[in-house]
Amino acid sequence: MTHLKKALGIDIGGTKICYGIVDRNGNVLSDIKKTPTPKTSAEIYDTLKNIIQENYSNIDVVGLSSAGAVNLDNTRVVSSTPNLPHGYNNIDFSTLCDKKVYVENDANCAVVAEAAIGAGKGYHTVLMATIGTGIGGGVYSDGKLFRGAQGNALEVGSLKIFADKRQKCTCGRYDCWESYASGTGLKNCAQKGALEYEEFKTSIYKDKNPEDITTYDITDGVAKKDAFSVRVFEQWLYYMFIGLVSLTDIFNPDCIVISGGMCKFIDVQKMEDNINKESVVTDVKVKIAQTENRAGMIGAAILALVHT
Amino acid sequence: MTHLKKALGIDIGGTKICYGIVDRNGNVLSDIKKTPTPKTSAEIYDTLKNIIQENYSNIDVVGLSSAGAVNLDNTRVVSSTPNLPHGYNNIDFSTLCDKKVYVENDANCAVVAEAAIGAGKGYHTVLMATIGTGIGGGVYSDGKLFRGAQGNALEVGSLKIFADKRQKCTCGRYDCWESYASGTGLKNCAQKGALEYEEFKTSIYKDKNPEDITTYDITDGVAKKDAFSVRVFEQWLYYMFIGLVSLTDIFNPDCIVISGGMCKFIDVQKMEDNINKESVVTDVKVKIAQTENRAGMIGAAILALVHT
Repeated sequence: MTHLKKALGIDIGGTKICYGIVDRNGNVLSDIKKTPTPKTSAEIYDTLKNIIQENYSNIDVVGLSSAGAVNLDNTRVVSSTPNLPHGYNNIDFSTLCDKKVYVENDANCAVVAEAAIGAGKGYHTVLMATIGTGIGGGVYSDGKLFRGAQGNALEVGSLKIFADKRQKCTCGRYDCWESYASGTGLKNCAQKGALEYEEFKTSIYKDKNPEDITTYDITDGVAKKDAFSVRVFEQWLYYMFIGLVSLTDIFNPDCIVISGGMCKFIDVQKMEDNINKESVVTDVKVKIAQTENRAGMIGAAILALVHT
Repeated sequence: MTHLKKALGIDIGGTKICYGIVDRNGNVLSDIKKTPTPKTSAEIYDTLKNIIQENYSNIDVVGLSSAGAVNLDNTRVVSSTPNLPHGYNNIDFSTLCDKKVYVENDANCAVVAEAAIGAGKGYHTVLMATIGTGIGGGVYSDGKLFRGAQGNALEVGSLKIFADKRQKCTCGRYDCWESYASGTGLKNCAQKGALEYEEFKTSIYKDKNPEDITTYDITDGVAKKDAFSVRVFEQWLYYMFIGLVSLTDIFNPDCIVISGGMCKFIDVQKMEDNINKESVVTDVKVKIAQTENRAGMIGAAILALVHT
């Protein structure tokens, strides 16, 4: 009897660590467990060590999903990670146990999970865009993650959608796609729209200080058919479309998977039609992600098994 | 004695067909020959057949470089090719002879050649941008060409660098990078600048109708230190920079190779410094292409040998 290899997939989030045992096909073979993310790097290391110890006899490898850029050896997180503690970059995850430990960026893990068992299953080239507070991305093509020279590829939130220094991004640079088309981008569209659009004068938010209008105000305003909110939202969707068309022409994906907190507000069929009308490459399918908060854990586990 | 395999590399250009025998490492083992590109598809087919016949006994495979998008089987050109005749898309190149014939897009062939023996040699992820009348591109990463779902990837000229329908491109869409940063883009910058920049009033071109200012006028004006030409040129370089920064953040290349008719006007060291200051990923080297008009022939030959 052949032994089907199993990985412990661990997703290290800013608030919780989530883990479970996963096979090569992305099937979760155990309960999914959660524990709060400790406040120091030393405690995170110990927590991971204990989780691995607890599952040690049932697994062949360990896959870790983490925020931040990962080195080419897949053993460390090398970029800054605002939601994880100081010293996190010093952790060499390969020392956690004597079995193989494979670390990958969370957006990359997510696209692997979606390509394996989610919305991207069966497609050749899956582009994932995660639309939350910022915008993250990943590309899985021809059975392989696109990582670039140092594992930093797919910083799609930094795609510039204007070339005249029009709007400053929270990163300090100008005109990043995520400053227009993320959750934060929707708020930016609203605050700018309040100063420019005639509809603001009769909006349910007309008495608000433009700076106090939130992302939630707009999605709620759209549900209430507030004309100002609808116009702001349409502008936001247009910015989303502009970035997705550029990425379609660059990667020629046959499937775009949209995930993140904002994805439920997007009409993917309409977005798909618009992209296919505008892009110069072959048609793409646009879908909503299916693996949700299991994505990091499952993708990391699959990658660990594939690279063993 | 082992037989080192050899390919006949053929570059099908709009005006001439160029060919030679090439080995797996990109060494050209024969004279490079040229013949004018015939005016009909049937004649192109016959010309290719004769070229192959002439070299048949000395080669193992045939590699073809062509304008246009190529199918996933690498046997046909499937997109429109303005400089090649009607019916070109109907040619099944695999029927040219009983040895393997492998077709690839010319920009993709060029990045393979640069990565093998040119400016990108020794780098992990090479992004090539060809700046001519339009802008083309290719990415070769971790020993592999990035092709996308249908071989159309890297339509980088279509990257949108504005999101407010500001300038119509020759393709009929708006705000394509190539309408700002190609040779045509430089002319567009000049014609717009003539209406906006104070420097035009004292320029050596002040008596010209703005619509008659050419790409050459500006590069010549820069050489003559004409202030208007210098300002137009700086704006053009900035648009070039905006696209290259976005592509750097998306692909995380360790080398960008710039080729095409406009590349000689670009200060690559300055461009490299500016990109590395602005991008969010690890540093990149910017270089000028070295294989020039042999690129298509050599790249196609290497690809044919690799895929045999």
